[in-house]
Amino acid sequence: MLDVAIIGGGPAALSAALNCRQRNKTVCVFGRSLDSSLLFTAEKVDNYLGMPDVNGEELLNHFYAHAVKKGVEFQECRVTQILNVGEHYMINAENNFIEAKAIILATGLSKSKGIAGEIDYLGKGVSYCVTCDGMLYRNKKVVVVSENEEGEAEANFLADICKEVSYIPLYKNITFLKDNVKVINAAPKAVVGAEDKVAALETDKETVSCDGIFFAKNTMPPDSLLFGLKTDGKNIEVDRRMATNLPRVYAAGDCTGAPYQIAKAVGEGLVAALSAVSDIDKMKNV
Amino acid sequence: MLDVAIIGGGPAALSAALNCRQRNKTVCVFGRSLDSSLLFTAEKVDNYLGMPDVNGEELLNHFYAHAVKKGVEFQECRVTQILNVGEHYMINAENNFIEAKAIILATGLSKSKGIAGEIDYLGKGVSYCVTCDGMLYRNKKVVVVSENEEGEAEANFLADICKEVSYIPLYKNITFLKDNVKVINAAPKAVVGAEDKVAALETDKETVSCDGIFFAKNTMPPDSLLFGLKTDGKNIEVDRRMATNLPRVYAAGDCTGAPYQIAKAVGEGLVAALSAVSDIDKMKNV
Repeated sequence: MLDVAIIGGGPAALSAALNCRQRNKTVCVFGRSLDSSLLFTAEKVDNYLGMPDVNGEELLNHFYAHAVKKGVEFQECRVTQILNVGEHYMINAENNFIEAKAIILATGLSKSKGIAGEIDYLGKGVSYCVTCDGMLYRNKKVVVVSENEEGEAEANFLADICKEVSYIPLYKNITFLKDNVKVINAAPKAVVGAEDKVAALETDKETVSCDGIFFAKNTMPPDSLLFGLKTDGKNIEVDRRMATNLPRVYAAGDCTGAPYQIAKAVGEGLVAALSAVSDIDKMKNV
Repeated sequence: MLDVAIIGGGPAALSAALNCRQRNKTVCVFGRSLDSSLLFTAEKVDNYLGMPDVNGEELLNHFYAHAVKKGVEFQECRVTQILNVGEHYMINAENNFIEAKAIILATGLSKSKGIAGEIDYLGKGVSYCVTCDGMLYRNKKVVVVSENEEGEAEANFLADICKEVSYIPLYKNITFLKDNVKVINAAPKAVVGAEDKVAALETDKETVSCDGIFFAKNTMPPDSLLFGLKTDGKNIEVDRRMATNLPRVYAAGDCTGAPYQIAKAVGEGLVAALSAVSDIDKMKNV
């Protein structure tokens, strides 16, 4: 079992990971590739004290190298769910299940809170993970709403088992979809339910009746990742120790709110790490 | 008038100053020399993300160079008092008075809350500034309690105007004191008052009757620096914006509490700076 699982991959996640390692804890960073960080595209960063006049890519590479040098491990994947399993947590990383004593959420700026009804019908027809839940929709009608190309593979997989697959791309230029996947160019508006189950997806153009809706997102809304996590709008609520309302779950960086700045993220990552380390050390039977 | 005055000189102060400059605000850092920072003596620092394996002195020099490059100004001095003067603040820096619209306190780890009665009798016989208040004690009896050599010059100045000067050094090896300064090697315990004025200094050995007590400290307890500042024990109370209970007064770094770490200080300095900038911009007639 890991001591600390860190969800993210930007400055907050790397700082948290580095500081867990400095305190001799096992740690793994679960996230997307470095170049998916908003920082990667920054032309010039000049307000991270001690490192003047660098660009985002250089800075991220420095950060990554520092973390690797200190023994931080990485797993490039999308985490779709984190479950509280008694005294620890279980992370679903594309259907690899990893246990950890503590979680640090450093998921970056969440672009959306999800559409109306999305969180309400989570587990009742709404899913973020085709690999986990796809088989539940054998011979049924599903919609895949995707912010990125990776959704295409998921739709293609569903096309083999479902009666009908609609695909709503929220990005440009589809790469490859099977012939029996129906593309709908529309903006999703709301999840419509009937008898406590998903019945349709309402869009700005048409209402698509379906049994299940899969959302493939670049960033998961944090409260759909971890049940019961307290948020304030799109920000995760934290105290000065960067602790959330859930035991041994911390948050750091842009996901806790403005200012969306590297130094804040790095500082919060450190604080979250030290709080996690201290709280793990207080657990019984570790 | 300065936009932002920063009290300190460590990583939090430098990060705050850098970020005020990045937002085109005028800023000056009032503090002691770099080598007075606790960080200066650190043999190895390895958890400030992006800059592995440096020592404290190197890191501080990088930080300082970055701030200077971006136009941060410095004034090496001891700030003994900050007064709220209507819409702005007045800083007493060894009897130079500087006005600023906002204050960022980055005074580091306060080693003491002061002795019993010290804050109660501030302005009623207790002072932190010989240059400011020395003349009030002409022909009277005073005690100087000093954490550093600088107190000797203050005692020597007082020896010319006061009836009796006692000197309690809280450090080793006195450099030079005039003959009429009486050295007492004892640990101060309490300020004793009578009729709302200082009457004596109680120590672990003797009680020294006096009219005034001057404390020369390496770090001022923050609530003696700025009247009405809310503290929690020895930490300045701040919210997530690093705002204190006083308008346009912020705090960052070790003075806000543990963990006493560079990344936390740098992050908080940034947040304090951006909050100050935003609040100044909202002021009328600026």
